Amino acid sequence: MSDDQQVTAAGNELNASFLAAKDRSDKTLARLEENPGKFTMLTGDRPTGRLHLGHYFGSIRERVAMQNKGVHTNIIIADYQVITDRDTTEHMEDNVLGLVLDYLAAGIDPAKTMIFTHSAVPAENQLMLPFMSLVTEAELHRNPTVKSEMEASGHALTGLLLTYPVHQACDILFCKANVVPIGKDNLPHVELTRTIARRFNDRYTKKNPVFPEPAAILSESPEIPGLDGRKMSKSYGNSIMLSATAEETAKLIKKSPTDSERTISFDPVNRPQVSALLTTAGLVTGRDPADIAEEIGDSGAGALKQYVISSVNDFLAPHRERRAELAKDMDSVRDILHEGNRKANAIAEETLEQVREAMGMRY
Amino acid sequence: MSDDQQVTAAGNELNASFLAAKDRSDKTLARLEENPGKFTMLTGDRPTGRLHLGHYFGSIRERVAMQNKGVHTNIIIADYQVITDRDTTEHMEDNVLGLVLDYLAAGIDPAKTMIFTHSAVPAENQLMLPFMSLVTEAELHRNPTVKSEMEASGHALTGLLLTYPVHQACDILFCKANVVPIGKDNLPHVELTRTIARRFNDRYTKKNPVFPEPAAILSESPEIPGLDGRKMSKSYGNSIMLSATAEETAKLIKKSPTDSERTISFDPVNRPQVSALLTTAGLVTGRDPADIAEEIGDSGAGALKQYVISSVNDFLAPHRERRAELAKDMDSVRDILHEGNRKANAIAEETLEQVREAMGMRY
Repeated sequence: MSDDQQVTAAGNELNASFLAAKDRSDKTLARLEENPGKFTMLTGDRPTGRLHLGHYFGSIRERVAMQNKGVHTNIIIADYQVITDRDTTEHMEDNVLGLVLDYLAAGIDPAKTMIFTHSAVPAENQLMLPFMSLVTEAELHRNPTVKSEMEASGHALTGLLLTYPVHQACDILFCKANVVPIGKDNLPHVELTRTIARRFNDRYTKKNPVFPEPAAILSESPEIPGLDGRKMSKSYGNSIMLSATAEETAKLIKKSPTDSERTISFDPVNRPQVSALLTTAGLVTGRDPADIAEEIGDSGAGALKQYVISSVNDFLAPHRERRAELAKDMDSVRDILHEGNRKANAIAEETLEQVREAMGMRY
Repeated sequence: MSDDQQVTAAGNELNASFLAAKDRSDKTLARLEENPGKFTMLTGDRPTGRLHLGHYFGSIRERVAMQNKGVHTNIIIADYQVITDRDTTEHMEDNVLGLVLDYLAAGIDPAKTMIFTHSAVPAENQLMLPFMSLVTEAELHRNPTVKSEMEASGHALTGLLLTYPVHQACDILFCKANVVPIGKDNLPHVELTRTIARRFNDRYTKKNPVFPEPAAILSESPEIPGLDGRKMSKSYGNSIMLSATAEETAKLIKKSPTDSERTISFDPVNRPQVSALLTTAGLVTGRDPADIAEEIGDSGAGALKQYVISSVNDFLAPHRERRAELAKDMDSVRDILHEGNRKANAIAEETLEQVREAMGMRY
């Protein structure tokens, strides 16, 4: 086989694997709609800062919907993931509690959804050891996210980043999640989790498999641009934080760049900055960005920004109000996290007992 | 630099590192003799079968001596280490309980020494995550034991074997061991543990370091050959098990190969098989193998074997008697292990709390 043929073959294989995953995702979603109580979901965030509108429309809104449908919803605050590619855990507590506040303000109900921190669940983390025996170094290296995160970090590859797909398998499998909502880029993680579950069951269990093989639910969420048309990123300062004040938000939108053409039109390819503002307004109002553009017409960028400011602030007002109210009693917020951690530990210890039993490690 | 020069430079570096470790070992041993109560030791075994005479003279005897001096002695039964390079956990329970029996029969006192299983201590295993963030993939690859075990296994390198030096760092550091008795080959593990301890302290603690930097105690034990003069190995069937009966031992020694020369002499280079029998008899009697050879002289291999049989069986008789007595009440043996596991968990949880505190992960 020539190099070109190999690349094509690899591409076809990836594509086939994507199509299989997409098909599984569609079928799983259909079954989930029929019987949500049979599904357990695991999602989470790295506590590296506050959540922004991109997070809200990209994942938080969907988690709330899943929770309210009756899916068993679990959210991991992946604090150890912060040190896969950084040397510091600065502001960790503030970031963790900020996440909990944003979740609660956005409608996550701790009576229905388990919110917990990775570092609080030793029995989950112990699963690393048996799971790492089920994957080869070559398989860990093949993970594209590990490679791209390593390159982005500018650091040498740490043992923690190399084994990161295995930690995710622990996150997903300790609570026996059978659905994992992700973007296409994270499909290899879920594929490796399926492999680990299958190998564990094949190797150690005769009749009753300990782990489900979870299905990825491929997110249909649109890519949400930052205010300047680039990717939303804290370092670009182009994201609207859920926790920002109305004034901060107005200031941020006012200083976002546009172009020299007065008439507003929705054209993401040729006018990325104006279109990003329109997309933002479209998301928070539920309107078509093209309609908003037409309405503003030649009133220009100033009018567009005023519309974006008022629609974003209107949309976020109830979230911000709930958030401020909750923040008055941080002890209760901490209690919610402690209760989530307690539940996660109980589940992890039960799973670890089953793993020990299957492996003949109960003495 | 030419390749040869690089090899020499690498050799010099290794040698310098060995000499530094040897010097540290000697100084540590001197301080330990003066004040044993200030030292905490971690050693252990993989539960892959019964212990043999090589284990006894190579490590168990020394552990008992350390324990009796007043060193805080900890023994890990490294059950997860069994799956670094194998697909099965067959006979695990039997092997683990067999180890406990051998320890107790050999004089390990559970009131002084903590015996525990790796899989029973989740808070220890959680240390894997912060520790793996402190080492690079390149550093893991540089470990010679990982390479040689991988090659010996005939398997692809698993994630678990690759990260094995980090598990060992967890084993050593969770109980804050400051001395680790090892053979020269395992020096790189202890070096990496020292690196991890230092980096953790540097990165996360301002005043009070959480971890000691443990010193390797380089074993002075002689290399103990198998009965046929080759390396002692279960697969060669050339090892005298501590738990074997007197009859099994006699049978094994009788069928061990010798050479055609009638007069017995101690000459490990030219007469490895006869010399292995003499070494064995020397160890269990405390006599010089050359004196035993002279005594037997031209009575031949039959007489030598009779001497080895009776001296080994005499030596092991009290061990075997204690072992048989203990094996009558396996519930008590299990209780001893459970109590060790309970203590190990209490220590690990305290250490993990200090780690969380240092990393700002208490919420």
